Parts: sequence; C-alpha cells; structure tokens
Amino acid sequence: APTILIVGGVAGGASAAARARRVNEHARIVMFERDAEVSFANCGLPYYIGGEIQDRSQLLVATPALFRERFRIDARVRHEVESIDRVAKTVRVRNLETGEVYHESYDKLILSPGAAPIVPPIPGVNTQGVFTLRNIDDMDRIVEGSEDAREVVVVGAGYIGLEIAEQFAHKGPEVTIVELQDQVMPFFDREIAEPLHRELERNGVRLELGRGIATIEETNGVVSGVTLTDGTRLAADLVLMSVGVRPNIELAVAAGLAIGDSGGIATDDFMRTSDPDIYAVGDAAEYRFGPTGARQRVPLAGIANRTGRVAGEHAATGRSRPAPAAWSTSVVRVFGYAAGIAGLSRVAARQAGFDARAVHIVSYHHASYYPGAAPLGIKLVYENGTGRVLGAQVMGAAGVDKRLDVVATLIHFQGTIDDLASLDLAYAPPFGSAKDPLHMAAFVAQNDLDGLSPLVAPDADLSDFQVVDVREAAEREELPLCDAPHAKHIRLDDLRDRLGELDPSLPTLVSCRSGQRAYAGVRILAQHGFAEVYNLSGAAAMRDFARN
Amino acid sequence: APTILIVGGVAGGASAAARARRVNEHARIVMFERDAEVSFANCGLPYYIGGEIQDRSQLLVATPALFRERFRIDARVRHEVESIDRVAKTVRVRNLETGEVYHESYDKLILSPGAAPIVPPIPGVNTQGVFTLRNIDDMDRIVEGSEDAREVVVVGAGYIGLEIAEQFAHKGPEVTIVELQDQVMPFFDREIAEPLHRELERNGVRLELGRGIATIEETNGVVSGVTLTDGTRLAADLVLMSVGVRPNIELAVAAGLAIGDSGGIATDDFMRTSDPDIYAVGDAAEYRFGPTGARQRVPLAGIANRTGRVAGEHAATGRSRPAPAAWSTSVVRVFGYAAGIAGLSRVAARQAGFDARAVHIVSYHHASYYPGAAPLGIKLVYENGTGRVLGAQVMGAAGVDKRLDVVATLIHFQGTIDDLASLDLAYAPPFGSAKDPLHMAAFVAQNDLDGLSPLVAPDADLSDFQVVDVREAAEREELPLCDAPHAKHIRLDDLRDRLGELDPSLPTLVSCRSGQRAYAGVRILAQHGFAEVYNLSGAAAMRDFARN
Ligand SMILES: Cc1cc2nc3c(=O)[nH]c(=O)nc-3n(C[C@H](O)[C@H](O)[C@H](O)COP(=O)(O)OP(=O)(O)OC[C@H]3O[C@@H](n4cnc5c(N)ncnc54)[C@H](O)[C@@H]3O)c2cc1C
Ligand SMILES: Cc1cc2nc3c(=O)[nH]c(=O)nc-3n(C[C@H](O)[C@H](O)[C@H](O)COP(=O)(O)OP(=O)(O)OC[C@H]3O[C@@H](n4cnc5c(N)ncnc54)[C@H](O)[C@@H]3O)c2cc1C
Ligand SMILES: CC(C)(COP(=O)(O)OP(=O)(O)OC[C@H]1O[C@@H](n2cnc3c(N)ncnc32)[C@H](O)[C@@H]1OP(=O)(O)O)[C@@H](O)C(=O)NCCC(=O)NCCS
Ligand SMILES: CC(C)(COP(=O)(O)OP(=O)(O)OC[C@H]1O[C@@H](n2cnc3c(N)ncnc32)[C@H](O)[C@@H]1OP(=O)(O)O)[C@@H](O)C(=O)NCCC(=O)NCCS
Repeated sequence: APTILIVGGVAGGASAAARARRVNEHARIVMFERDAEVSFANCGLPYYIGGEIQDRSQLLVATPALFRERFRIDARVRHEVESIDRVAKTVRVRNLETGEVYHESYDKLILSPGAAPIVPPIPGVNTQGVFTLRNIDDMDRIVEGSEDAREVVVVGAGYIGLEIAEQFAHKGPEVTIVELQDQVMPFFDREIAEPLHRELERNGVRLELGRGIATIEETNGVVSGVTLTDGTRLAADLVLMSVGVRPNIELAVAAGLAIGDSGGIATDDFMRTSDPDIYAVGDAAEYRFGPTGARQRVPLAGIANRTGRVAGEHAATGRSRPAPAAWSTSVVRVFGYAAGIAGLSRVAARQAGFDARAVHIVSYHHASYYPGAAPLGIKLVYENGTGRVLGAQVMGAAGVDKRLDVVATLIHFQGTIDDLASLDLAYAPPFGSAKDPLHMAAFVAQNDLDGLSPLVAPDADLSDFQVVDVREAAEREELPLCDAPHAKHIRLDDLRDRLGELDPSLPTLVSCRSGQRAYAGVRILAQHGFAEVYNLSGAAAMRDFARN
Repeated sequence: APTILIVGGVAGGASAAARARRVNEHARIVMFERDAEVSFANCGLPYYIGGEIQDRSQLLVATPALFRERFRIDARVRHEVESIDRVAKTVRVRNLETGEVYHESYDKLILSPGAAPIVPPIPGVNTQGVFTLRNIDDMDRIVEGSEDAREVVVVGAGYIGLEIAEQFAHKGPEVTIVELQDQVMPFFDREIAEPLHRELERNGVRLELGRGIATIEETNGVVSGVTLTDGTRLAADLVLMSVGVRPNIELAVAAGLAIGDSGGIATDDFMRTSDPDIYAVGDAAEYRFGPTGARQRVPLAGIANRTGRVAGEHAATGRSRPAPAAWSTSVVRVFGYAAGIAGLSRVAARQAGFDARAVHIVSYHHASYYPGAAPLGIKLVYENGTGRVLGAQVMGAAGVDKRLDVVATLIHFQGTIDDLASLDLAYAPPFGSAKDPLHMAAFVAQNDLDGLSPLVAPDADLSDFQVVDVREAAEREELPLCDAPHAKHIRLDDLRDRLGELDPSLPTLVSCRSGQRAYAGVRILAQHGFAEVYNLSGAAAMRDFARN
C-alpha cells in the first residue's frame, strides 16, 4: 500500500485525504497543515466576523481527531512542509510547535497549499489595524481588532471585499470600499456591477472607485487613515486588504515543478503536476478552464473540493475519472441583492477571442402575479453565428443562484441559446414562470441572431440613430433614456398609426424600459419598410446602468 | 398574408397568437375563446382561492383590448369553435352571447383547446357544492361556495389537489384529501411522497389514501358528505374533484385528425397535426417526451407556452425551430415543503424499460454552517451501466426548484452522473455548498456503479443480510432501522477494531442515518475481506419513509 502525503489540510487537501482513504483502506496517509486547524470553512469567515454565524465551532468542519478515528488519517497541524526532494521522494517537515525538523517519504504527494492574500507594498501596510482574511487566525484577529472600529476601509471589491463590507456595515462601523477599477466585481461587465454600487450606497457603504490606496497612516502605531492615489484622505481605524490572492507555489517552484501561464502549478487531466507522483489542486493549481479550454487558476472552493477528490483517488489507486473543468461560476450576496456569473462576461469573452454578443433582460424571479415577485436581471453572452452560450451574469433579490446553476449546467454541455430556450424548467407560481427569465433571455438572443430584432449594446452611441421611445409618458419622466435627447416618443400601441412621423430610410433604434415593448416596435417597423431597425439591449434601465 | 385562426386563448393559444404577430405583421389573426377571459393565469387560481393572491385582476395577464391594440389580434371571447371543415378550410363558430353561428376561413389553424377536469361518474357528483377548478369562472364559483365551508374534501392528490388542500387549510376549514393510490403525487416514488404525507398531517390535513369516493351525499340539495369505497363516511360541505384532466380533443376527432397513443392530438416536430395546415399545442396535444422519445401528453403550462410559440411562428412563416421536448419537470409547494420531479421516477423508468438504479441522499440546501440550512432530500435515478441520468425527485424546505432545474438542464443533454458530479455550480455560503447536494447524489451514484459501494433500495428485505448499523446509540433509539431487529450495532469509528464480531462470508449491509457513514463502513468492510457489502440507499431515514 502506498504512502500518500498531503500538503495543506483544508478544502483541496482534506477532500483528497478523505477520498484517498475511502478508495484505499490500506494506504498510509499523512496530511500536513501549518496552521492550527484543518478542514475549516474558509467561506464562512466573513459571516462570523459580521455575527451572522455565532458559533465559532461551526466553522471547524472536521478535526484531526475525526481524521484519526474515522479515516485513520494522520493530520498533523502546526506542521509545515518546507521542501520536496523529488529524487529521494521525501519532504522535509518542520513541527512549528517544537521546532523539530524531520523527513517523510512518499509514494504519492498531493499539494493543496492554497493561496495567500496579496499585500501590496504600500507605505504603512504593516501597521496595526491593517488585516487580510484567509484563515481562522486572521478571523480571530479581525474580530478582536474590530471591537471598537468605527471607520472601516475595505480595499478591493471582489467578492470577499464585498462580503466583508456587507458584514461590517451590519455590525455598525462606517464602511468605505476602495477599488482600483471603476466598478466592484471587476470581472462583471460594467452595467451588471452598477446596481450593486447603488445597493451598497443605499446601505450606507461609501464607494471610492477608480483609485487605489497610496499610503496607510498611523497614529501611535495604530492605523488612523488612508490616502488614495488621487490624494483623497479617509479616516480609518481598520483596513481590510482584499485585493486578490497569490498562489502558494514556492514549494513547487523550489522542487522544479512546472508552473503554468496563469502562475499556478501546471496540472494534467488527473491533477498530476509535471512530476507524475506529485499532484496539485486548489488555489495553487491550474485547472482546465471550461469556456476556453485553457489551463488557469480559479481560486474557488467547489473546484478545489472536486479536484481534491480526483487527486486523492488517483494517488491512492492509480486511476480515476478525469478532473472536472472549472467554469468560475460564482455568486455574492450584497445586502438585499445577489449577483453572480457563470462562464464569461462579454468583456472576457471578447478578450478570449470570441465573437460575443449579449442580451439583457429583466423579468420576475417567479410568476409576476404571485406575491413577492422580485425583478431579476440577466445578461446572457453568446457566440455570434453558432449561438453557443458563453456565460451569464445574473442579479436580483431572489432566484439568482438558480439561474446561474442552470447556465453553469448548460455551458458544461456547450449548449446554445436554442437549448436554453427549450429547457423544461420546474414551474409553479411560487417557484418560477411558465416562461422563465432564462427562456426570455434565450428568446431575445434567438431573435437577435435570426435578425428579427438585432440588438445594440446598452451603452451604444445613439446619436446616429433615429431613436423611438415607445413608453408611456410617465415612464419616460421617471427614467429618461440616457444621452438620447433626440428620441421620438410614440407609445407602442400608437406606433402603427404614426409610422408617417418616422423616416423609414434611417437606421432606427427602438427602446422602452426593459426592451420587451421595443421588440414589438422593432417588429412593426421592420415589417413596414424600415430598412434597418435595432433594439437597444436592456433598454432605458440597462442604459442607465451602463452609462453611469 | 395568411389568415391564422386559433382555438383557445390562454396558455398555448395566446402564446401562439402573440408570436405569430411578431413574426408576421401582415397575417390576419383571430383567436377564439369560449370563456369570458383570455390569457389568464390558470396556475394562480388556487392562490386566489386561498387568499394569497388578493387582487383578482392580477390573474388576467392580457385582455382582448391589449391583443387588439398591441398585436392587432382579434380576440373573440365567448366564441366557441364548433367544428372544422378541413376541405373548405373553415371553422364554424358560435357567438355564445348572441347565439349567432358563422364560418371563418383559415390558411392555418392552431388548436389549443386545453383539457377539462375529469368528473368521475359517481352518484351525487352534480350536487351543489361539488366543484372542479380549471378557469376563472370555476374559481369565482368556489370562492363564493366556500365562504362558510367548514369541511372540505379534496378528491385526488396530484399537484392541483395538494395546492387546493393547502390553500383551504390556510383559510380555516377542515381539509381531507381522498386519493385512490396509497400516496399523494402518484407519479413520485413512494418514499418521496411519504414526507409530504407527514407535512400535510402536521398541518392538520387528513389523508384518506388507497381509497376512492363511492358516493356524494346531499342534504336539501347541497352536499353534506362523501362515502369512500371502503365505506368510510366523511362529512363535507364542499367537495373539490381534482382527479386529473382529459384533453379536449372532440373538435380534432370530429375533423378526423390523428389521435396519438396517449389520447392527445398527434403532432410532429413543428406541432403540426396529421393535417399540415392545422397545429395543436397545449394540454390537448402530444409532445415529444424527452426521457423516452415517445409522444405523449404533458398537461403543464411551460411546454404549452413554448410549443405555442413554435406553432405560432411556423403557422405564420412556414418555418421555425423544432418544438422543444417535454420532460414533465414539475414542482409543488405543500406548506413548509416543496417537492418536485424532473424526468422519470424509478417506477416510471422501469416501466419505460430502463434498467434504472437510484440513490437517495439528504444534504443541506446551503452551507451547513451558515444559518438557516435546511435538509434537502434527493432521489437520483440513473441507468445502470451508462450512468445516464433519467430523473430526479427533490424535496425540502428550500432550494428544491434549483436542483430540479439543474437536473432538467442536464437531462436535456442526456447527461450522466459523471456530468452531474463535474458541474461547476455557484457557491457562497448563503446559496449552496462547495459540494452541492446534487454533487453528493452523483458521487454516491458513481460509487454505486463503480462497485465501490453498491446500493440496495431503501425498502429492501433485509432479513437475508448481515446488517450493521454504524450509528451512535442515541440515534438508533431516535430512529430505529425499520424491520431490521437483527442489525448489529457497531459505531463507525469502532468498526475497524471490531471486525471480528462480523462474519466476512455473509452478504453484509451497512446502514446509518443518511447513508454517508454507512458508505465509509462499506469501504472498510469491503477492503477487509468481506465478500459482498452493500449500502442501504438513504439509510434509516429513507427506509422509514419507504416502509411506512
Ligand atoms: C474569506 C474567504 C471567503 C471565501 N468565500 C468563498 C466562497 O464563497 N465561494 C468559494 O467558492 N470560495 C470561497 N473562498 C475560496 C476558497 O476558500 C478557496 O478557493 C479554497 O479554500 C481553496 O482550497 P485550497 O485547498 O487550495 O486552499 P486552502 O483551503 O486555503 O488550504 C490550504 C492550506 O494549506 C496550508 N499550507 C500552505 N502551505 C503549507 C505548507 N508548506 N505546509 C503545510 N501546510 C501548508 C495553509 O495553511 C492552508 O490552510 C473564500 C476564501 C476566503 C479566504
Ligand atoms: C388550477 C390549475 C393550476 C395549475 N398549475 C400549474 C402549475 O403550477 N404549473 C404548470 O406547469 N401548469 C399548471 N397548470 C396547467 C396549465 O394551466 C395548463 O397546462 C395550460 O394552461 C395548458 O394550456 P392550454 O392552452 O392547452 O389550455 P388552457 O390554458 O386551458 O386554454 C385552453 C382554452 O381553450 C378554450 N377552448 C376550448 N375549446 C374551445 C373551443 N372549441 N372554442 C373556443 N375556445 C375553446 C378553453 O375555454 C380554454 O380557455 C394548472 C392548471 C390549473 C387548472
Ligand atoms: C470535511 C471534509 C474533509 C470532508 O471531506 P469528504 O468526506 O470527502 O466530504 P463530505 O463530508 O462532503 O462527504 C462526501 C462523501 O460522502 C459520500 N456521501 C455523501 N452522502 C452520502 C450518502 N447519503 N450515502 C452514501 N455516501 C454519501 C459521498 O459520496 C462522498 O464520498 P466520495 O467522495 O468517496 O464519493 C472536506 O470537505 C473539508 O475539509 N471541508 C472543509 C473545507 C472546505 O471545503 N472549505 C471550503 C468551503 S467553505
Ligand atoms: C400574455 C401572453 C399572451 C404573452 O405572450 P407573449 O407576448 O408571447 O409572451 P411574454 O409577454 O412572456 O413575452 C415574451 C416575448 O417578449 C420578448 N421579450 C421579453 N423580454 C424582452 C426584452 N427585454 N427585450 C426584447 N424582447 C423581450 C421575448 O423574446 C418573447 O418574444 P418572442 O416569443 O417573439 O421571442 C401569454 O403568455 C399568456 O396568455 N399567458 C397567460 C396564460 C398562461 O400562460 N397560463 C399558464 C401559466 S399561469
């Protein structure tokens, strides 16, 4: 029976260890973890800081004792693996409690050392009161350090930054988010991030977008403020750096393992590194990235767990199913909203070389006539010509994760907008609609690619179009169509009778609030001799987000 | 431009009409509806009766005026189509207000006449106080007739019966459900229906399962009770018959259109009947049924809407994408629980000729450590050998519709358990788990087909097995393993040390509460020389449901 050593005892490592044991009762399995805990719920840390999770022990999913008693796995906490000798097939380990250093031999070695929060090299970054959040120790420090905090600055507006900002705002302090990009969730398209800006501000969180932190100031050795790259000064008694993670690849680099283009440990279909006796999973490794087929890092928990399972099995038995691809499906809750992405944004799709188009729709998360229906916004990105779905961004108060998961499933199969339009989804009034928002998005995409109602991006320059706004007067006042003072106003139901007021030879764009009535208008004009007619994707609502 | 006539102005018919107009501005479109309303929310009717939907006008999704003004569709309510002359290409119409009869010619005719509630021919069924629910008129009658109702009997426990029972129970009357099968939701597998029985009873709804209604009694011309087939007598001042629907095929039959094996109007890939100028959609028509490829009726709203869209387009332009398949995905809420199915139950899968296996798992609907996590039960049905997913039944307090929709998407692509295990679903603690319940179900199915931990059905006869219950003592007392007094009790963590107490030559079955610890136990025994070791699918919890 083989000896399997594992570096890192949390998401990827612990999953690998448990699976290895179940498929091979006789292997010797040792899991090294340099921190004091194994198998903790990284993703729950913000919610303990915010007080939503009150019982700290809930975060400790499994303990060394459980690994020993149930799995006969030797989980050694406070043991750091310092180096790998690939020729001798040993690792050097330091017991961080005693300082003792020893070697262990392996037949198979699994690396799941995770990643570390990036700490940008700015003056003052090591001041007391400046934190990062990765593990239980960090969390405990933040809880202690935030007891009297009144002004919190969160640097970086990815999902961890947003979660922490939300949780601090619930607790009481004033919260400001500083983000170098001009939007939160930088991998979302602009107009999808904008409603989150409004939700954050509605809940008292201040946003400083499009600038970074230049320096961190202290008073008596404790943080007292930050200065932004544009000179703005913010008072702060707690600063949380959440500007991304860097993979822990030092061990792998020192051992001469190949590193991939995205900076993670290169892996094959079974999560083997360039050394077939060494596996790598989790935040430190590269995965096959579904949308492009390229190999890249995706620092998320699900794929770490699932690839850990594959590596554990392969290390223990010499075979397994191939590792699943990562599609970087993710979701974040921000106060009353959830927002997320499956697959590629339109920007990312274009960067990846796809001829990507997109629709925006707003629909209700369940039957509109059933109490509690909440608007759900979807941006669906698909390939021109083939109609292959490349990704979706979804946001709203409810039902967001469901639509993301449906799209995540569809893109796993390289499904098209026609597949999406055909899905037989579960419908009863409390749960959905006979035409689900995803169907709507697919229908609109079909109409776009079929040329029935070609779409124009919500932030398009409208000055060269004859613009027709088919809404009711009151709606137009409430939400004007941004940057389109030249729009003609003709209610949809009057359009057929007032065609004479429009010039059919001009490129014409129709808009309303969501795009649905505009679509009907497009169809009327296109079939009454108008040469070129477009629908403004997402209409006034999305344009408002996109041009903000 | 063609003249398109449509029979029926609700789910299928109205969708066809609207789509036809959008793709063909110049067609003449007339929609006949014999009732007073078009485009109403059939599915919302129970919730108005129960008072959850308070505004009756919410149920009227579109009006004849909207059809006229927006779509130039002539929607004639209270007009019944009485017959079709396929040679002359005309229909005979009766204006039910005036009694006037006239003919209209068509180029294309679309039938979406729906279905009618089945009224079994039992004595007293026409008594005042006995109702069926299909349309707004029925709803209004029930609302009026139930004002003073104190004892309601609902006959038939499909989803409409359960919705109505739930809604009446909220309003106040005593509610009894009578159902001929020995379970509610007769197309669910037995053990999935059982938790619904308990939820209904917990909420005061009485169940009379395994028997039907023999007679309905009256006092002074008003219903006063029912007698069941076994002689039981129940007092009742309101009886709701919801024992299924029969398709409205009279028009089609009289016109000589082909009727399919399931009793619905036969259709092709574009929803054309045996007469290529006549289309049929909705509850009266047959669809391609995804799981088997056979053509059959599926009386649900989503597929009626989506096939209506196809028929409308095809009738108006002569072409369209093929109609989507129906997978009969459905979901029902019963008080605090939701339950539903995508694809086939195991019973249905076997009837359809599949060598079907199944796993049962219970997991939390989102991260277990995040507040509010609710248990979610999944029964996943898959084909032996290929691992093709045939269907899933899901039940729990939250997150049910999401998992159904993921499975509905997966089976659209004929996905396997390996696909399911690979899905990259959205995960953050408020929305899911790093290993989603669906992943868990797929993992267990993989282990079953791989022979790592073969499953035995939850209601299996255990008398010939050496049974090992690996739970803690307190758990065993709380929920004994039904019909297995001979089970040996060895805690999982002690199993390796107490192997000597078991006979490795006997077929051995391991069980716990959910099946997860038993699985670990199976792996230990199988790798310590036990010849044949099984896991009891769903373990004590599911067995309790299955054997009840
Ligand atoms: C605050 C927070 C919130 C998150 N929320 C989500 C979320 O909502 N959804 C989501 O999908 N993902 C989330 N994540 C990301 C997720 O936690 C990671 O993707 C996942 O934990 C990666 O697994 P891993 O095994 O690679 O790394 P980790 O789980 O970090 O485990 C690596 C372990 O290896 C140990 N280690 C490193 N080097 C050595 C060594 N040389 N010797 C011994 N031990 C070593 C480390 O101490 C560490 O404990 C979140 C992360 C954080 C920090
Ligand atoms: C109470 C209730 C709850 C429901 N809940 C759900 C649910 O939660 N989820 C779900 O998916 N489905 C649900 N359904 C089913 C769904 O409503 C039907 O599947 C769907 O309406 C079928 O569409 P259709 O066009 O075939 O029939 P219908 O929507 O019933 O429309 C047919 C119309 O044709 C008219 N008609 C018939 N013959 C003629 C004629 N000769 N001339 C003129 N007009 C005629 C009828 O009056 C009728 O209005 C529910 C149904 C009911 C009754
Ligand atoms: C705790 C931990 C070690 C558990 O590892 P694990 O035992 O592989 O995972 P789970 O407890 O989720 O159980 C899954 C196993 O149980 C099996 N299982 C689950 N329900 C079952 C059932 N009803 N019947 C039979 N088997 C079942 C699954 O098949 C799977 O086994 P397999 O991988 O051999 O197929 C690991 O997930 C962990 O460390 N988690 C915390 C860290 C983390 O993930 N952080 C990031 C997210 S916050
Ligand atoms: C009301 C009714 C006539 C509407 O028919 P409809 O106009 O086809 O459907 P919707 O209002 O849902 O709108 C869908 C259309 O708007 C388009 N659309 C939706 N959002 C859009 C947007 N943001 N931009 C552009 N187009 C949009 C879709 O593409 C679709 O058009 P298409 O089919 O030509 O592609 C019909 O659905 C009906 O009668 N419903 C009630 C009856 C019923 O369904 N009962 C059972 C369920 S309770």
